[in-house]
Amino acid sequence: MFRAAELGQTVSKKEFKALAPDIRRQLLEAQVLLSRTADFGVMIDFAGVDGAGKGSTVNLLHAWMDTRLITTNSYRRVPKKDQYRPRFWRFWRDLPGAGEIALNLKARYSRPFLDRVYGHITDLEYLAEMKRIQTFERMLADDGMLILKFWMHLSSAEQQQRLESLQSDPETAWRVSDRDWEHWKMYTQFIETAERTITETNTEFAPWHIIEGADKNHRILTVAEIILEALKTRLRDHGHELAPELLIDAEATDVEDPIPEAPDRHVTVFSKLDMKSSLPKPEYRSELATQQRRIHLLSREAIEQNRSAVLVFEGPDAGGKGGAIRRIIPTLDARNYRVLQYGAPTDEEASRHYLWRFWRHLQRAGNLTIFDRSWYGRVLVERIEGFASETEWKRAYAEINDFEDQLVEHGTILVKYWLHITPEEQLRRFEARLRTPHKRWKITPEDWRNRGKWYEYETAAHDMVKYTSTHVSPWEMIPANDKYYARVKVLETFGNCLEAALRD
Amino acid sequence: MFRAAELGQTVSKKEFKALAPDIRRQLLEAQVLLSRTADFGVMIDFAGVDGAGKGSTVNLLHAWMDTRLITTNSYRRVPKKDQYRPRFWRFWRDLPGAGEIALNLKARYSRPFLDRVYGHITDLEYLAEMKRIQTFERMLADDGMLILKFWMHLSSAEQQQRLESLQSDPETAWRVSDRDWEHWKMYTQFIETAERTITETNTEFAPWHIIEGADKNHRILTVAEIILEALKTRLRDHGHELAPELLIDAEATDVEDPIPEAPDRHVTVFSKLDMKSSLPKPEYRSELATQQRRIHLLSREAIEQNRSAVLVFEGPDAGGKGGAIRRIIPTLDARNYRVLQYGAPTDEEASRHYLWRFWRHLQRAGNLTIFDRSWYGRVLVERIEGFASETEWKRAYAEINDFEDQLVEHGTILVKYWLHITPEEQLRRFEARLRTPHKRWKITPEDWRNRGKWYEYETAAHDMVKYTSTHVSPWEMIPANDKYYARVKVLETFGNCLEAALRD
Repeated sequence: MFRAAELGQTVSKKEFKALAPDIRRQLLEAQVLLSRTADFGVMIDFAGVDGAGKGSTVNLLHAWMDTRLITTNSYRRVPKKDQYRPRFWRFWRDLPGAGEIALNLKARYSRPFLDRVYGHITDLEYLAEMKRIQTFERMLADDGMLILKFWMHLSSAEQQQRLESLQSDPETAWRVSDRDWEHWKMYTQFIETAERTITETNTEFAPWHIIEGADKNHRILTVAEIILEALKTRLRDHGHELAPELLIDAEATDVEDPIPEAPDRHVTVFSKLDMKSSLPKPEYRSELATQQRRIHLLSREAIEQNRSAVLVFEGPDAGGKGGAIRRIIPTLDARNYRVLQYGAPTDEEASRHYLWRFWRHLQRAGNLTIFDRSWYGRVLVERIEGFASETEWKRAYAEINDFEDQLVEHGTILVKYWLHITPEEQLRRFEARLRTPHKRWKITPEDWRNRGKWYEYETAAHDMVKYTSTHVSPWEMIPANDKYYARVKVLETFGNCLEAALRD
Repeated sequence: MFRAAELGQTVSKKEFKALAPDIRRQLLEAQVLLSRTADFGVMIDFAGVDGAGKGSTVNLLHAWMDTRLITTNSYRRVPKKDQYRPRFWRFWRDLPGAGEIALNLKARYSRPFLDRVYGHITDLEYLAEMKRIQTFERMLADDGMLILKFWMHLSSAEQQQRLESLQSDPETAWRVSDRDWEHWKMYTQFIETAERTITETNTEFAPWHIIEGADKNHRILTVAEIILEALKTRLRDHGHELAPELLIDAEATDVEDPIPEAPDRHVTVFSKLDMKSSLPKPEYRSELATQQRRIHLLSREAIEQNRSAVLVFEGPDAGGKGGAIRRIIPTLDARNYRVLQYGAPTDEEASRHYLWRFWRHLQRAGNLTIFDRSWYGRVLVERIEGFASETEWKRAYAEINDFEDQLVEHGTILVKYWLHITPEEQLRRFEARLRTPHKRWKITPEDWRNRGKWYEYETAAHDMVKYTSTHVSPWEMIPANDKYYARVKVLETFGNCLEAALRD
């Protein structure tokens, strides 16, 4: 079955550079259309050989598309005695709504798969599991969900090579565990179970796609093309066609810089930051690797101790929040973290206190939650746009402090980042984005409107730091005009916080 | 502090009968107005001396008002090592939305209260807890929530008398535990801590009301009047006034019976039920007590074994579902059960598979969930009203069977009741409700419309039983023309199911 995925297909760097931008742009168009029309949800599963690029593909899809509308779900194995609800409850809980995309790792296939490989269940038990999965998938597909499943393949030799190459580089050696080698030795059992799994559950409503995983460029392009094709077809079934206009907003592309003059004596807590801080590329690369390794080890220790961590990212648009977050992700196991971004509140959220939507998503102990913008919206955008009254945003400082006190008291490691850039740097970045077809969508008329209120935002942020940078949860203000410097600083700070907390 | 609640105030049966209907009707009007305008949520806490009627007051409020818009929250004590999130997470999770009412038992006050009584925490630690609670309440009140807190009081002698009287009656003796007597012996410590608690947290935004608990009628009326007054005042602040028209729908009160003639050869699974089944009142009373005691003991065993139970109630309007449920409730500790009724789906629910809203509310192992109408709506009302297409409701049988299989496989004790009445009995009950001011609101134009489709519903129910009465989860079809018979049968069946499951 997997012969067709051992052809040694590759895509050269040049080809990739020629093909990727168009796919990327179309994927975005499809996603925008999907979320606007909200006719169906999308569930995409990644399974396959360790080292075949499941995680990196998921990360790349987050980077290529609008990450606010994508959720990655990955599941820890729960011992039978700790299963307080039927096993599929977790999968139901995490179902994407119409217009949303869920990427699943180690989801419903993982447990029966490993149980069969290790011989913990009989073939009949295994078949019953496959039937249950198929029933689940049919139910969702019947309801309109688009389901895609990718099997990422490597030959035994390729897997060995992949593990050895990771191990030989001191910067990546930490990624290889004994368990990885154990699994490699069981390669035949894995492949045999993979064949069974795919045979049993390859349906027209939830098809498997076997992907040759050895070459990164080939793998990414193939997966992206399949997703794009499926989205396009399904959108077309609903009467929607991709179109460049979906991404290009004239109001965002043809704008005179609205930034006002700086007010007199505009001095804030950010005035003291050394905005020239920078790091040359070679140092960046080695520091990045060092810090990632360090966080990887420390976060594993935190998980073992059942400590939670919450990272909050705030700062001006284009300040590099997403880029910094993408440098943290690879150090973690997808089962242990979740990146949250908040759009407009749902009706359940709108009818409750504004902190409810953050409380409701607090993860269980032993998890990391990254908030790409957060409850601080109350004292930033809601203050400036008048969504919260003056009384409301003023009392929010104390409410937020109390919320964070409770997190910290419970043992959560809380780190709050403000990534600061200058107005000149923001303009440079906006313009650079507008020049890049697959980045243009990131600039909206709202970004320009916010830029027009630069100093109001800076004042609000100044007040925010003043009232919410407490001893238990201080703000980490990071000069971010230089992305290399900012990213390393973010990682280093996180590492320090983890270390301090674990030493407690 | 509690002298004023030891005056021996009573309300005679006659007075109660004269006063209750009007309060009851106004409470309903207020609730309808609250839910229609949805300007604020309501949180009502009950605390106080054991035996002072906290639970029975909560049950009565459910009976008096529209229980679909009320949720009762009660919390088990979780050992520190099992607290996976900050302690207040549970209280946040269960916050009522605007237009909703939450009744809390053993909530945020419970733990610090007992910790202080037992001397597990110092006075300073206790004060810190009170401060945290106050911050929480202020935050919610600032956001517009109406918060009321009742302290139900008994003198030491009254408490002793109450426990003794329960104990002396074999039908209620099971309600008294050793722990109750232990607490009675610590009466002074309890009262002292109660004074501290009330002093520390009696605020204008979340006031305490001390209620003399000895006389049931006095207690109920006082609580109901305070709630009514607070609701009226707050609604008036928002520009809304109670009015009888809120409850009286001309389309529901002045209707010609729309029931069609029975179709030829209309034979269903219900045709074989002996609709004459009945039980005389004296037997009913003694049987009810026996079955309640039995369920009380069995359900405690189930909790200890961490078994869950799910009860599903379906049947024609006015078939007695609510009455049967209210006979089960008193056998249970509020911390272990939840009654769920489903209104229109929220937007999060509407954008997902119809089973999602049921999966999402599955309780942890060791809890009982009662569904007053359920996922079977898919093959009943949704089928008949055309909300689900023929393909959709037809495939729902298999989807539901799979869902229930998963519940049972996980160890859940699942009991599904169909309470059947004849069209003649339904008409009698509709008319009786219309004649009773505080019950009139229960009859809506929709009830009459449904009645006009009596035989379609019966056919749909017949199909439902045919396809979903399985070996693992059979339907319990109960002739319910006689309420006494039906209630005892419901309890007896539940008892048998519990017994069978626990013997496994």
